[in-house]
Amino acid sequence: MIPQPFTLPAHFTPATAPKETLDPAAPVWWFICDRAHLLTTTHTLISTDAKLFTGRLPQSPTLEALGLRSQRTQFLGYLNGQPCIAAELAEKSDLPENLTFQNLRSLHTILPDDLFAIAARAVQLITWDRTHQYCGHCATPMQQALTERAKRCPKCSLRQYPRLSPAVIMLIYKGEDILLARAPRFKAGMYSVLAGFVEPGESLEETVAREVKEEVGIAIKNIRYFGSQPWPFPDSLMVGFTAEYASGEIVPDPTEIEAAAWFHKSNLPPVPGELSIARKLIDWFAL
Amino acid sequence: MIPQPFTLPAHFTPATAPKETLDPAAPVWWFICDRAHLLTTTHTLISTDAKLFTGRLPQSPTLEALGLRSQRTQFLGYLNGQPCIAAELAEKSDLPENLTFQNLRSLHTILPDDLFAIAARAVQLITWDRTHQYCGHCATPMQQALTERAKRCPKCSLRQYPRLSPAVIMLIYKGEDILLARAPRFKAGMYSVLAGFVEPGESLEETVAREVKEEVGIAIKNIRYFGSQPWPFPDSLMVGFTAEYASGEIVPDPTEIEAAAWFHKSNLPPVPGELSIARKLIDWFAL
Repeated sequence: MIPQPFTLPAHFTPATAPKETLDPAAPVWWFICDRAHLLTTTHTLISTDAKLFTGRLPQSPTLEALGLRSQRTQFLGYLNGQPCIAAELAEKSDLPENLTFQNLRSLHTILPDDLFAIAARAVQLITWDRTHQYCGHCATPMQQALTERAKRCPKCSLRQYPRLSPAVIMLIYKGEDILLARAPRFKAGMYSVLAGFVEPGESLEETVAREVKEEVGIAIKNIRYFGSQPWPFPDSLMVGFTAEYASGEIVPDPTEIEAAAWFHKSNLPPVPGELSIARKLIDWFAL
Repeated sequence: MIPQPFTLPAHFTPATAPKETLDPAAPVWWFICDRAHLLTTTHTLISTDAKLFTGRLPQSPTLEALGLRSQRTQFLGYLNGQPCIAAELAEKSDLPENLTFQNLRSLHTILPDDLFAIAARAVQLITWDRTHQYCGHCATPMQQALTERAKRCPKCSLRQYPRLSPAVIMLIYKGEDILLARAPRFKAGMYSVLAGFVEPGESLEETVAREVKEEVGIAIKNIRYFGSQPWPFPDSLMVGFTAEYASGEIVPDPTEIEAAAWFHKSNLPPVPGELSIARKLIDWFAL
C-alpha cells in the first residue's frame, strides 16, 4: 500500500454527532473551511506589523468566543477525546486579526499529520453540506440525519450521502520513457501523468484506456493497478494504474492538454508534489 | 481484466446530444426506465391470452407512436447509427398491452449484450436526471448542458455530473476457507462476500479494512486488488479486492449482517449470479 497522507490517526474517533452534550467550557478543534481553504492562526510581529503564519488551528469552546459566526457545521469526531467540528462562516464575516485562510494543500507538512487528515475530511464534508441544502428531485430543504452522514428529503425521501468522484490516474511507459502532459491550469513548466473521471458503466480499466485514447490518441496494454488515494480537492477518489504503450502517435486533445511528450526517467520536467498519487507513480517508475 | 457485462460495444458511439436533427421517420431504440426496470415488448398468445415475454426493446421514431409520453429523456448515442434515447414516462402513464417493465438484472443474457450494456447506462442516467432537477445549493431549476453530460445551475453555477458511488467488495480467505455473510435483504439461503461504500478521506484499501472490521470484527492482511466493475443498481462502481485473515473471531454487526461464517471452497452455500463481481471473486478462489 502506498503512504496515505489523509489517513485518520488511531487517536481520532469519527462520529456524525456528539456522544453527549458538549462541555460549554471545554475547547473544540475548529476546522473552518472556505472551499479548499482552512482558517488558521497568525501571529503579528509587533515591530514590523508583518503577519507570521503559524499553521495552528483555532481551539475554543465556541465559534463566538473566536469572534466568528457559522452558517453550517458538520461534527467530525474526537481527537484524543477533544471534539472536532467543521464549519463554514456566515457570509460577509469579518475575520479577527489573528486568523487567516490558507490553502489546505499548502498546509501539508505544516499542520501536524493528524490535523491535516481531519482537515481533508472537513473541507469535503462542508462542500457536500453546502451543495446538498435542497433536494435535487423536488427542491425541498433537506434534513441532516443524526445517526449517519446523510441528508434526507422530508417530502420525497431522497437520501444523499457525501459524494465522491472516482477518477483514474495512470503512468504510461515505453521502455524507460514516461508519457507526461500539461494542462493549461498547471504551474508554468509543470507536467504530470494523465488522469480523468470514471463515467457510468465503465470499469476502472476501461476508463484508463478511454482517457488515454481521448487525451493523447494512443493505445495502451498491460493495465495494472498501482494504489489508491483520496484527493479532497474537492471530492475525488484517485485510483492509480500503470500501463504500457501499445501503438499510435501522441496527438494531444487541445481542449484538455497543451503539451504531451515522452520523457526519459532520468530527465523529467517539474512534476507534482509528494502529496499527490501522481508523484508516487512517477517516483515508483523513475527512482 | 475480468469480463465486463456492461462494456459498450465498438459499434456504439456515445453522445450527449444528437449530431443532427433526428429523422422523423427513422426508428430510435427506446430505453424507457422506471428505477432499475426497463420497458420491454411482450407477445400475447391469442389462444391462451398469456403474455409471453420476448425481451425486445421498443423501436419507433417517437414515443408518441408507441402510445407513450415522457417526463424526461437523456440522449445516449448511436448503435450502428441508430439513435438511442433513455426516457422516464410521465406519471400515471398507461402502458400499451404489448409493453411491460422488467428488472434490468433479469434481462442479462436475455437482451443482446450490446443493448444490455446501453440499458445499464440508461437506468443510471435517468436516475441522475430525476435526482438533479434542482440545484442542491440554491434550489434553482438546473439546466442540462449540451456538450457534456452535466447539469448547471443558472443562478449559482453549481455543476453536477452523473454521480457514481465507489464501493469495495472483498473476498477474505483463511487457508481454503472463504468468509461469506448474508444480509437480511438477500434471497433465502444466499451468502456473499463483504462489501461497503468508500467514505471521504479513505483509500480503497482503508475502506476494505474498515468494512471488514465493522461488519464481522476481524483484522485482515495482504489486501490485493482484484478488478473493478460498474454496478448500475443504481450507481455503484465496485472495486474488488482479496485479503487474508489475520486475527480475531467473527462477530457479525447485527445492523447489517444476520449471519457470517467460514466456508470451505468445495462446500459453498448459494452465492450471487454471474453478472456480479462477487461471483467472479468467489469463482476465482473456488474453481
